[in-house]
Amino acid sequence: MTDNAQQSLSVINVGLASFADTINETGGTAVHVDWRPPAGGDVNVARALAGLVNNERIDSANRTAFENYLTAQPILKGIGRAGDVIPGMGERMILHSGPPINWDNVCGPVYGAIIGAILFEGWADNENTGKELLRSGEVTIAPCHHHATVGPMAGITSPSMPVWMVSDADGGNQAFTNLNEGLGKVLRFGANSPEVIERLRWMQDTLANVLGAAISSSGGIDIKTIMAQALYMGDEVHNRNAASTGLLLKQLVPHALRTGLPADDVAQAIEFISGNDHFFLNVSMAACKSMLDAAHNVPNSSMVTAMARNGVEFGIRVSGCGDQWFTTLAPVVDGLYFPSYSIDDAAPDLGDSAITETAGLGGFAMAAAPAIVQFVGGTPADAIRRSREMQPITIGRNTAFTIPALDFGATAAGIDVRKVVDTGIQPIINTGIAHKDAGVGQIGAGITRAPMACFTQALMKLSETPTG
Amino acid sequence: MTDNAQQSLSVINVGLASFADTINETGGTAVHVDWRPPAGGDVNVARALAGLVNNERIDSANRTAFENYLTAQPILKGIGRAGDVIPGMGERMILHSGPPINWDNVCGPVYGAIIGAILFEGWADNENTGKELLRSGEVTIAPCHHHATVGPMAGITSPSMPVWMVSDADGGNQAFTNLNEGLGKVLRFGANSPEVIERLRWMQDTLANVLGAAISSSGGIDIKTIMAQALYMGDEVHNRNAASTGLLLKQLVPHALRTGLPADDVAQAIEFISGNDHFFLNVSMAACKSMLDAAHNVPNSSMVTAMARNGVEFGIRVSGCGDQWFTTLAPVVDGLYFPSYSIDDAAPDLGDSAITETAGLGGFAMAAAPAIVQFVGGTPADAIRRSREMQPITIGRNTAFTIPALDFGATAAGIDVRKVVDTGIQPIINTGIAHKDAGVGQIGAGITRAPMACFTQALMKLSETPTG
Repeated sequence: MTDNAQQSLSVINVGLASFADTINETGGTAVHVDWRPPAGGDVNVARALAGLVNNERIDSANRTAFENYLTAQPILKGIGRAGDVIPGMGERMILHSGPPINWDNVCGPVYGAIIGAILFEGWADNENTGKELLRSGEVTIAPCHHHATVGPMAGITSPSMPVWMVSDADGGNQAFTNLNEGLGKVLRFGANSPEVIERLRWMQDTLANVLGAAISSSGGIDIKTIMAQALYMGDEVHNRNAASTGLLLKQLVPHALRTGLPADDVAQAIEFISGNDHFFLNVSMAACKSMLDAAHNVPNSSMVTAMARNGVEFGIRVSGCGDQWFTTLAPVVDGLYFPSYSIDDAAPDLGDSAITETAGLGGFAMAAAPAIVQFVGGTPADAIRRSREMQPITIGRNTAFTIPALDFGATAAGIDVRKVVDTGIQPIINTGIAHKDAGVGQIGAGITRAPMACFTQALMKLSETPTG
Repeated sequence: MTDNAQQSLSVINVGLASFADTINETGGTAVHVDWRPPAGGDVNVARALAGLVNNERIDSANRTAFENYLTAQPILKGIGRAGDVIPGMGERMILHSGPPINWDNVCGPVYGAIIGAILFEGWADNENTGKELLRSGEVTIAPCHHHATVGPMAGITSPSMPVWMVSDADGGNQAFTNLNEGLGKVLRFGANSPEVIERLRWMQDTLANVLGAAISSSGGIDIKTIMAQALYMGDEVHNRNAASTGLLLKQLVPHALRTGLPADDVAQAIEFISGNDHFFLNVSMAACKSMLDAAHNVPNSSMVTAMARNGVEFGIRVSGCGDQWFTTLAPVVDGLYFPSYSIDDAAPDLGDSAITETAGLGGFAMAAAPAIVQFVGGTPADAIRRSREMQPITIGRNTAFTIPALDFGATAAGIDVRKVVDTGIQPIINTGIAHKDAGVGQIGAGITRAPMACFTQALMKLSETPTG
């Protein structure tokens, strides 16, 4: 018996997966290694990669960058008016998500949201006049990321909008983000109807006041603690924020009640947040931005500090490469579409929210949020598998963010450009999907991957620096 | 190759587990079936069991009872004064958890909590005078379960205490439970110091007012929906109630703000709830009591409708056996103890909270709450295994309560006395652990099992009824 058992087959299969399937079906054990030639078989990239792996100069820079990311302690400090608090934001500037783009090249939902912002600001009272302001250059657009800001989906932030203000506890960097409007017809998905503008006005007048007073009374709210708790409560703090929103609300409400503001304003604000399970998303994004900005600009570091999409291009920034973007066409997401919509209706991947994955959350922490597969597709087992899949392409683990379903293991964090190119494993992203036309809104959600071309470009750039 | 693979060993091992271990270690596949003789080898019990399995009279009764449990829709309707709203509760009666017991036989924490309730009511101003009231019979004690009530741990409920009022949506049964005091030195764990009594007074004066007004304004809160959401957010709604507490708070706060009550009272109430992640436990218990009372008193049904412990005895009630309790000595829980405490300090298993397991939640739904293993012991994989282990001893699945980690499978619910005796699988219970002495409080938490003797007694009782 024992002899027979010992003879049962164990094989490591490299290459054709169907060969391994046959062995498994007949009762043996085969582990399929999805081998691909490093650097996708491109000789120049392979040569660059060879010069960068096991490179102490880069390894050391990555240790510094990763340590800076780990020790960042983003605190929610208040609410400000975007034009007043966001560095370098002009009074006629509109911020958008993703890498830089000209206003006349933007995708449908971004265009819809820009027009919505112009209407909200009262700079024009119709689309044509608004368009003229863009054409004449009287109104300019710029990436959120160029102004210490992040915004989900279109990411549109105009000067009069209220924004969350996040500061590192050590007095380091600041990060900003707009307030989440909820689901359905909302500006960030490109809708700009009167109800959308009216909601933005209420947020500006009432919600911002209540939140600002409550946070001021709290003295600041530790965001990482909320994120860590939420990972034990089914959130991955990108596309699922039900628990984190509740945890934030729990901290804000007692302060809101003692602001002396009219009880009805407070009640309206609390009802709005209670009815919007994505409310925490923007806070999560700003915290991630703050943690990653702490890791940015470490010379020679190959750690990715931003992944962002503008609905046309997907771009990444890398710690050791300064403010340069490495971009390629944004993919269209093959996700779960709402009834009557399909991939043919979808805008390409959009939004700064992939900053959560860049920080080891979102898709990287999907194992924490098995219920999310109902929103983005797959099974709970896939969610766990995907979290584990990200481990080989990251610099380390963030022990501030642990996941019960991974036996309380820490999230994989700090994407290393070299490891992505070497393994061929593309970073995973959980994302919402906007309709390609302006004014429609969200039509689905799904799982996508950061395009490899961004990482090979960054790798080539890193290889230009003489090795030390 | 294929031939060798096909020869690898597959064995079903019945009996000695170490035999299966040897096969597994040497590379073969063995499934260990933990076979025990039915009915623990007792001939009388085995004979009774033989007459009750595959018995259409009982199967049919169980279908009715289980359907009644499934369709129950407990609604949180308000807050009342225990003595005014709990049926049959006298003005000098104190309710306790578990099966009936004489006051002079109760365990330390129950005694401590009874004295605390007497001090709280102002019937006496010290322990000795309080004891005299019990000795003389001027103050009587009775099980919560005899008065449509459930209470966690000691379960002590006296007439002036505020209680949650739960009603079935169809106007069926009512259920009651006291308000959760939080952790640490609290009455339900047997503490009765001035701070404990003072907190109870504040709950009576302020908290009850705010909650009562908010629920009244809401028109009633659907508890099953909160429980179902919480199962997607890491709670099993017995020993982990972090998400459910937040969800309840989210529904209550906007109403609380419009009650016209002083803002400071409202803020105090919300702060208290925000600071107590177990606040929802009692609501969960009352909802489970309501669902199971709907299934109670179906003639011939072998469905368990209550499991409860008084710190001396463990008792169950069965749908077809009316108000009879089937009791045996309560086990001491081998759990995770707080620093400086051990199993030697523990009171035996205590509290009505096993009503959650009886309803398919708590230990039965542990797969929903992997983080709970940090509180009660084990690994996240154990939590999933335990939820699956309960499937063979239950009548069916409650599709209102699904669990992502079980691929969105429904919780096993409706414990069948016959199946417990037949399989030897004892129902699992997640529980807190009280110190054996009065006045100390909680010293740990852990996982325990309902004792088999309760189920064999119930089986024998069911077998007395002539089969139809």
